[in-house]
Amino acid sequence: MTNAINNPRIVELRRGILKKNDEVAAGLRTGFLANKTFAVNVVSAPGTGKTRLLEETMRRLISHGWSVAAIVGDPETDNDAQRLRRSGAAVNQIITRGVCHLEASMVADAYAQLFLERELPPQILIVENVGNLVCTTSYDLGESLRVVMISVTEGEDKPLKYPGLFNSADIAVITKCDLAEACDCDLVTMRGNIHGVRPGIPIFETAAKTGRGVDAWVDALLQQRNALWAKS
Amino acid sequence: MTNAINNPRIVELRRGILKKNDEVAAGLRTGFLANKTFAVNVVSAPGTGKTRLLEETMRRLISHGWSVAAIVGDPETDNDAQRLRRSGAAVNQIITRGVCHLEASMVADAYAQLFLERELPPQILIVENVGNLVCTTSYDLGESLRVVMISVTEGEDKPLKYPGLFNSADIAVITKCDLAEACDCDLVTMRGNIHGVRPGIPIFETAAKTGRGVDAWVDALLQQRNALWAKS
Repeated sequence: MTNAINNPRIVELRRGILKKNDEVAAGLRTGFLANKTFAVNVVSAPGTGKTRLLEETMRRLISHGWSVAAIVGDPETDNDAQRLRRSGAAVNQIITRGVCHLEASMVADAYAQLFLERELPPQILIVENVGNLVCTTSYDLGESLRVVMISVTEGEDKPLKYPGLFNSADIAVITKCDLAEACDCDLVTMRGNIHGVRPGIPIFETAAKTGRGVDAWVDALLQQRNALWAKS
Repeated sequence: MTNAINNPRIVELRRGILKKNDEVAAGLRTGFLANKTFAVNVVSAPGTGKTRLLEETMRRLISHGWSVAAIVGDPETDNDAQRLRRSGAAVNQIITRGVCHLEASMVADAYAQLFLERELPPQILIVENVGNLVCTTSYDLGESLRVVMISVTEGEDKPLKYPGLFNSADIAVITKCDLAEACDCDLVTMRGNIHGVRPGIPIFETAAKTGRGVDAWVDALLQQRNALWAKS
């Protein structure tokens, strides 16, 4: 029977949507680079702990003197924007009204709103995507770095079951490592599975609750930013 | 700018897809009811622990003399089917090749394959959906019961952020309750948030690892099944 896998109309429409998204993303990327704004797209399942780790990340970046802003997507509520604002950063919430991923045009609108409120564009822009391991994969948001987060509570085999997201990421961050033993999660196996689908990707083990690994992850983020401007 | 929220072509196509899915689902439901097969659609985020609790659930149902089969959806790998087969049930894996939800036609195909291998249709059919809190919401799979699972590791506010899935479910199961304290999850708040978006829905607190609440959840499943046949 015909379904979303093999329906030619869906395949064609999807191709058109992605092509248009890619065009908007390319424009966004040009703008970000021109403004020296390092844009980071953070993807994960719902409940991985993105917001908690990002709040801690942004707090540290700001304390190091960086100007930071964030855009956060959720189907409903602005809970996450409220939490991220506690870091001191400017934050804009996109409520997607049930849409399961962010698109470049949503980010462009949210960024324009944020930017109008500020004299200078931020040096670092964190885009916290909707929690979704499939639909976020194909949408370029104009980012310079894509970060996939996975928590020890989700099971070691998630990279094998959702390879697309890990394949399209530049950095992997394992969250909630303080719970690894309680969840019977073997970090060596999880790392092996991540590298199985995405050989060589840098992996950081973190626990926002205890602070484990957070500095190393923040340093890596800054190194990636600095490497980008060294190139240009 | 136009995006998936407001693109009229997407809205129209989506409506058409869902209409067709509803037709296939209605056919499936008629078949299930005629066969006295109680079909259960289990939805959650990735990593909630559906497979582990379902393996334990199916093992108990089988030990009580019920014939049980399962259909399980994942973007890649047949890991979950292998795990569920340990319960002794007949299991068919749908590999969706990146599609983020199951559709009625996928279930129909998988059920036909399973059914051809068996003399009698199962009394209970568990459909373990792809891990996704948004896209699974709108697809009726012909089930008689929809169960939403949420783990204590995912945060208490998930029902508020993803109300659609909770609104369309008949039973809510909280998983990994043995980790509630370690995750700073207040079960009273989580229950309050579930009831906030779906007043009156029965909620079961479980931990597959310790066995907590599993019998109560299995009993509720059987009560729902028995109530259905008492009606017809």
